[in-house]
Amino acid sequence: MASSSIPNVNVMMDKVKVSASNLFEQIEALGELSDTTPPSITRILYSENDVRARDYVKSLMVSAGLVVREDSLGNIYGRLTGSEDDELSPVVSGSHADAIPHSGKYDGVLGVLGAIEALRAIRDSGLRLKRPVEALMFTSEEPTRFGLSCIGSRAMCGRLDAGYLNSLRDANGTGFLEACRGGGYCKDGATTAEVLEASYVPKGGVHAFVELHIEQGPMLEDEGLDIGVVTAIAAPASVTFDFVGNGGHAGALLMPYRRDAGLVAAELALSVEQWALGTKAVDTVATTGVLQVYPGAVNSVPREAHVEVDVRDIDEERRDGVLSSIIRSAEVIARKRSVEMEHKIVNQDPPAPCDASVIDAVQESANELGLTSRRMVSRAYHDALFMAQIAPTGMIFIPCKGGVSHRPDEFSSQKDMENGVRTLALAMIKLAGVAETCDQEGKEEL
Amino acid sequence: MASSSIPNVNVMMDKVKVSASNLFEQIEALGELSDTTPPSITRILYSENDVRARDYVKSLMVSAGLVVREDSLGNIYGRLTGSEDDELSPVVSGSHADAIPHSGKYDGVLGVLGAIEALRAIRDSGLRLKRPVEALMFTSEEPTRFGLSCIGSRAMCGRLDAGYLNSLRDANGTGFLEACRGGGYCKDGATTAEVLEASYVPKGGVHAFVELHIEQGPMLEDEGLDIGVVTAIAAPASVTFDFVGNGGHAGALLMPYRRDAGLVAAELALSVEQWALGTKAVDTVATTGVLQVYPGAVNSVPREAHVEVDVRDIDEERRDGVLSSIIRSAEVIARKRSVEMEHKIVNQDPPAPCDASVIDAVQESANELGLTSRRMVSRAYHDALFMAQIAPTGMIFIPCKGGVSHRPDEFSSQKDMENGVRTLALAMIKLAGVAETCDQEGKEEL
Ligand SMILES: [Mn+2]
Ligand SMILES: [Mn+2]
Ligand SMILES: [Mn+2]
Ligand SMILES: [Mn+2]
Repeated sequence: MASSSIPNVNVMMDKVKVSASNLFEQIEALGELSDTTPPSITRILYSENDVRARDYVKSLMVSAGLVVREDSLGNIYGRLTGSEDDELSPVVSGSHADAIPHSGKYDGVLGVLGAIEALRAIRDSGLRLKRPVEALMFTSEEPTRFGLSCIGSRAMCGRLDAGYLNSLRDANGTGFLEACRGGGYCKDGATTAEVLEASYVPKGGVHAFVELHIEQGPMLEDEGLDIGVVTAIAAPASVTFDFVGNGGHAGALLMPYRRDAGLVAAELALSVEQWALGTKAVDTVATTGVLQVYPGAVNSVPREAHVEVDVRDIDEERRDGVLSSIIRSAEVIARKRSVEMEHKIVNQDPPAPCDASVIDAVQESANELGLTSRRMVSRAYHDALFMAQIAPTGMIFIPCKGGVSHRPDEFSSQKDMENGVRTLALAMIKLAGVAETCDQEGKEEL
Repeated sequence: MASSSIPNVNVMMDKVKVSASNLFEQIEALGELSDTTPPSITRILYSENDVRARDYVKSLMVSAGLVVREDSLGNIYGRLTGSEDDELSPVVSGSHADAIPHSGKYDGVLGVLGAIEALRAIRDSGLRLKRPVEALMFTSEEPTRFGLSCIGSRAMCGRLDAGYLNSLRDANGTGFLEACRGGGYCKDGATTAEVLEASYVPKGGVHAFVELHIEQGPMLEDEGLDIGVVTAIAAPASVTFDFVGNGGHAGALLMPYRRDAGLVAAELALSVEQWALGTKAVDTVATTGVLQVYPGAVNSVPREAHVEVDVRDIDEERRDGVLSSIIRSAEVIARKRSVEMEHKIVNQDPPAPCDASVIDAVQESANELGLTSRRMVSRAYHDALFMAQIAPTGMIFIPCKGGVSHRPDEFSSQKDMENGVRTLALAMIKLAGVAETCDQEGKEEL
């Protein structure tokens, strides 16, 4: 697959009018659907606000003239039909709208609403494409509710085991199927295996996939560039630890008799940092994002602790080495303190290289739109990681203020968002191809 | 004040019949009033279950023939009148019935229900005392709701500042007065200062105070002894820390750019342990019982952390040295990691030596009842610590299984509880004195 070259981009893109202010307003409106007070955003899978956000996304798709369909998990597709051959596999762009507790308005949301805006602008331009194009909102990219990220895209590429999904529980002990029904999906009594089967997209079912996202890092802003052309997505892994010691009264349980599960967790968190720094590679990151001690009272020695660790690298072997070292360290620390330990590797996914065809389409689009850009690696986890298993895949990054993400002060400017959506629209046009029968000016003026 | 000697203890105590099985049933019944499923007990100040527990305690006092009164904070007194001179200051015994999350049935509760059972047995014996005796349930010995322990006894001895109490907030942001009204107290629109004033007991207002409690340590069980005669209560202090770093996406925020508040908390917890071990004194204990990271998601670098540390020792100077060292370490660690820090010393109370008169009364009672005993230090915090400021004070410990406390498997046997309540009853009789006009057999057979 090679990207089509568009004869007169400037003329065509004068008609494909992206509205950054509409997009900005939509992002603000979606931000209101949060369990915490905006700009702090908390939107948990299948919660009331998640369901309201889904309704809002579907309404925008309909307004943009897209044909909406949802799969049994709640992946939401909005298709622009009327192409030269609507039977061809579509070019797809999308991201997620769920948000971890106390995060921001742009992560994921830009890629969902930006794709809809891109398709709206293409549709309103009158441009006819060779293939259908689709905007897509994935279910649960964030791991907040069930501890597993990218549930929607894992299911789409057939990488999610029904038994494993059934084994997951949220903080209230609710299982996935029950939660899914609570969100208004899989109401027909289907089993988890049937739900996953119904969400599956075979290889070739998507012609190309491209995801627009804020960088979530400082590089573009620091270098004063408009667009990041993503060449690979770093390989993420995560592991949870549960420790059980003795616990007791903080005054009465003397130091020599303690088996303090909280101190095991503390030592482990510092060890996680040491292993990440130990590779001496800037690409290795390891984080103890969850550290809970139980019962959690000032006058009670922690009897139990729960720790969740995230490890990423662009080098899979190095990442796996750090992960193994962290688990070994946890075992050593727990043994030293006579504390029981259990661990579970939640995910350990391979990195995804982006496809040359999509990289080229994005790079050419940025160039032709007169935007500055650089090639870069995505260090964050995205649904594109899994889409890469069934389709040629790429990503477009735009700058975000201070490189900040997963925080209420996450921000991208309207100008940067406009640059991103225009690049996305043009790349999708290139990937879908312009119909021969098209009577758009750019073509006529050839 | 010297304890009265009782001419024929065996004859008298044959009439003062303590029922361990009634006490056991009452402890079980109170255990049902819990926010968590028994044997895990959670009973938070002024919560629904705390109010129900108060009603239950008052009903037991009434059944035991005691005259019930409550102060504006909810300290509950049950008085046995009919003494030789009811105008004399009473001998008081009591403890608390609130329980930290996921703790046990015996901590505090034994001392409340045990005192009521002791007074019931004295009353039913027909024995007449020189002074009135009282059973007392203190408000909020545990610091769970407002981070401050012994609110009831601090107020009684005039050691609680209204401004400070007003500054405290529970996890939902509720202030003390509002919570107090929620529990059914201080309904009359009184200010905090007026509430505290109304709870104050002047020095001399209590003739003697003795608290019965489970040991919360392994010493009595290990040595096979029945009774611990407490000679001093270790000096507790606690300090809270709040750290603010940068936070961000666990994949995108590279290691050199992190200011991870969770790692500051982890280092501090280990430093707390090191400072406690560093005194080389078995009596020094320091605990990081609360360690919270925020936002607390696996893929988010901790932006904030909250830590609560408890330090105790029988040597006040040494305890204060450890506390200062911990705060200095926190400052060094936070500075090293470029994380902002705030700290607050929540309490830093002096240790309380017990009064010779009460120690002697307890020791003689154990001896005369044929029980084995030892002198010991209370390493845990008790309301007795504050009662010692207004009255001659002592404590009686009984063994608890494995030295375990603040846990669901906290346990004392009926035999040990019976020994404790009989010792308490006899010590109270000694401290209150037997009336000259008394026609009980032990006296008659002189
Ligand atoms: Mn995210
Ligand atoms: Mn995202
Ligand atoms: Mn306690
Ligand atoms: Mn207690």
